[in-house]
Amino acid sequence: MSKVSNLPPSGFRDFLPKEAAERSYLLDTIVRVYRSHGFDTIGVSYLESLTTLTGKGGGQDNEKLIFKILKRGDELKRALESPGTSLADMGLRFDLTLPLARYCSRHREELPKPFKVFQVGPVWRADRPQKGRYREFYQCDLDIVGSKEIGSEVDCIQAIFSVLKECKLTGVELHLNDRRLLSALRGDLEEAQWAEALVILDKLDKISLEGVEKECQEKFGQVPAGLKKVLEGGDLASFEAVEKESFESLSEIIKILSALGIPARFNPSLVRGQDYYTGTIFELRHPDLSGSLGGGGRYNRLLEVFGGGEVPAFGGSIGFERLHLLLSEKGLLPANTSRPDVFFPLFSSELRPALVDLCHKLRAAGLKVDIFPDAAKLKQQFKYADERGIPLTAILGEEEWAKGMLKLKIMQTREEKELKLDPLDSLVAEIKKLI
Amino acid sequence: MSKVSNLPPSGFRDFLPKEAAERSYLLDTIVRVYRSHGFDTIGVSYLESLTTLTGKGGGQDNEKLIFKILKRGDELKRALESPGTSLADMGLRFDLTLPLARYCSRHREELPKPFKVFQVGPVWRADRPQKGRYREFYQCDLDIVGSKEIGSEVDCIQAIFSVLKECKLTGVELHLNDRRLLSALRGDLEEAQWAEALVILDKLDKISLEGVEKECQEKFGQVPAGLKKVLEGGDLASFEAVEKESFESLSEIIKILSALGIPARFNPSLVRGQDYYTGTIFELRHPDLSGSLGGGGRYNRLLEVFGGGEVPAFGGSIGFERLHLLLSEKGLLPANTSRPDVFFPLFSSELRPALVDLCHKLRAAGLKVDIFPDAAKLKQQFKYADERGIPLTAILGEEEWAKGMLKLKIMQTREEKELKLDPLDSLVAEIKKLI
Repeated sequence: MSKVSNLPPSGFRDFLPKEAAERSYLLDTIVRVYRSHGFDTIGVSYLESLTTLTGKGGGQDNEKLIFKILKRGDELKRALESPGTSLADMGLRFDLTLPLARYCSRHREELPKPFKVFQVGPVWRADRPQKGRYREFYQCDLDIVGSKEIGSEVDCIQAIFSVLKECKLTGVELHLNDRRLLSALRGDLEEAQWAEALVILDKLDKISLEGVEKECQEKFGQVPAGLKKVLEGGDLASFEAVEKESFESLSEIIKILSALGIPARFNPSLVRGQDYYTGTIFELRHPDLSGSLGGGGRYNRLLEVFGGGEVPAFGGSIGFERLHLLLSEKGLLPANTSRPDVFFPLFSSELRPALVDLCHKLRAAGLKVDIFPDAAKLKQQFKYADERGIPLTAILGEEEWAKGMLKLKIMQTREEKELKLDPLDSLVAEIKKLI
Repeated sequence: MSKVSNLPPSGFRDFLPKEAAERSYLLDTIVRVYRSHGFDTIGVSYLESLTTLTGKGGGQDNEKLIFKILKRGDELKRALESPGTSLADMGLRFDLTLPLARYCSRHREELPKPFKVFQVGPVWRADRPQKGRYREFYQCDLDIVGSKEIGSEVDCIQAIFSVLKECKLTGVELHLNDRRLLSALRGDLEEAQWAEALVILDKLDKISLEGVEKECQEKFGQVPAGLKKVLEGGDLASFEAVEKESFESLSEIIKILSALGIPARFNPSLVRGQDYYTGTIFELRHPDLSGSLGGGGRYNRLLEVFGGGEVPAFGGSIGFERLHLLLSEKGLLPANTSRPDVFFPLFSSELRPALVDLCHKLRAAGLKVDIFPDAAKLKQQFKYADERGIPLTAILGEEEWAKGMLKLKIMQTREEKELKLDPLDSLVAEIKKLI
């Protein structure tokens, strides 16, 4: 039989049980914290029409990142016969914000106003595969759609920091800026030119101050005045005269978040990539990480793309893969959150019916019970329990059944304990004490 | 601005918060029960190489069901220039079994033996969209890879019935058969012909006995003897002479499962679609549902496709969408599992810092707390709480702050209760009593 490759596609990953359990623990934690902040969940399909993904909200920049779905049947045939026709009709979502905007536009009459919503799930980007960059990765977004005040900024950012606190991750800094402030710094430059200047500024961390100045020289013959002001830095007060509204909202946000112990700071050189931001923008940074651990911003005009006028909205995201990496490096991920409590080897197939029945009762009493499916060699069965790190192994052969007892081997101490099978309540209580 | 459609692609769905919360509750329940049976989780990407999906494991039948990913860049250009070259390189998985087989083949040295694994997630099929049939839907599989005895059958089926019990769904019947038995009934027919006969038999529920007989007449000039035997029915004992091994394993499985209260019955006309089954097959049926609620079987040869020889395996699945539908129709889904406990309207933006701080503390104490992001009209804020069904609303205006009190409105009884803000512990305890 010719062999089929057992590798996933290039840029895609398999997760072994240990890592899968860590990821699942982390996702559960994020969902629990987001819920504790009053955010609701929704369901949005993983695929969107290409027109949704490449419309004004998505933008041209994103188009080459989209994994497109080939048309099928007659539609494909027709597309192949008329050059210039798109061969694809759908695409995999490349973020969670654009599908949310479509969803909120469609369901606006059925959703609470404002709508506090979280989404946790995979997105796909057709980047060239490289180390640490994946084509399929998780995002953990939360958004407040239909609210214009800084309460949204505070609520979302606070929820994200609650997640970090719950994960015991310290050292994360919050950088804040405002797109209105950046716009006000444009001065005499044309909009397109200023946009180019901001693209250069966005690379500050990568190419350093000298790099930014050099690129500006090449492009504009000088560093634009607005950019100079940004690069000089200075505290928020020194930007008060530039744009009053953003000064006031940033001041208030920083005041409230600082009072909660969140290390919030104004960073005039923060740009963030997406076109659709209109106000506050933020980013999470950690000294052990190049690039950001998350971020987001206000996007008051994104929903317009789908009709129905302006709807103010703010949202942010935790970079799940990076958070997992950081927590893993720092040993902050609990081990074996999903392993069974007790393992029952199977001594012979004759004993199977009685053993299955006992395990059934123990599970109904709230224990996580693993039973070996085959009456294999005991050595193999014990090795299995060992590899899975199951804390208790219950020895229950002919002899033990006859005596109405089981022997419990405690993995950590190598101790053994005899327990009576009857009454079940006492057996369960004894086992629970040992987990 | 030209408007982009706000609909999902045809055959795909959005879920409103209520339904999304139900689905999330149901998935959590399934995962919890599967874990209580000692099953581990893994991570497998949602996309696979086309060669994986269309290889011998996938089979030609499935190829037209695959949503294929268009090649990109130069590769696409090259494919378009050489007719006959595939335009796609990857595809969305159409089930969870084939990716699992690839995964287990790749990681065989790193996984416990046997490997008890569950998977819960979306799969995609390019079916024509129609009522009740979706192109993206969830499957909830569990498998035991590397075990040959009926302990696997018992463990998987038992776990599935534990889910149904946890959901309080009654009336589900378990139908069992064995592919070895069906093979032994082939008689003088050629394998290809017998396969066609089984395809006809598989339609029994849809086209009834007369339909099966009629199609057999048309195809074979008569009803093949083996099929006649199946259609006559009869209990398991009457099939003992046909194939000894399947008789013995089915007897034992039915004996053990019946003792657990699972209504297991032998059904000689059960076929199940997939080519890869080699032994026991099963299906869950419910009187209120046409078609099945789940099923699975033994597939001892599927892993061979990826090299490394025969690995015995058994697995099954709950049809998530159908289970959700049934539970919903029967009112068995709990309402509002994700709603916040307490809602805090915002009386004025001046009060925001103090309110945010209080909510922060209440969340840290374990409460799910929602705060309105804008200092909007109170009428709007109360309407919001009402729509979300939040059980408690905390009134905390200038006056209450001055008195160090809050007024708690209990939604269900329309009662009001005054509570002191200090000490926090007592406030938390009082609120928890009222949830």
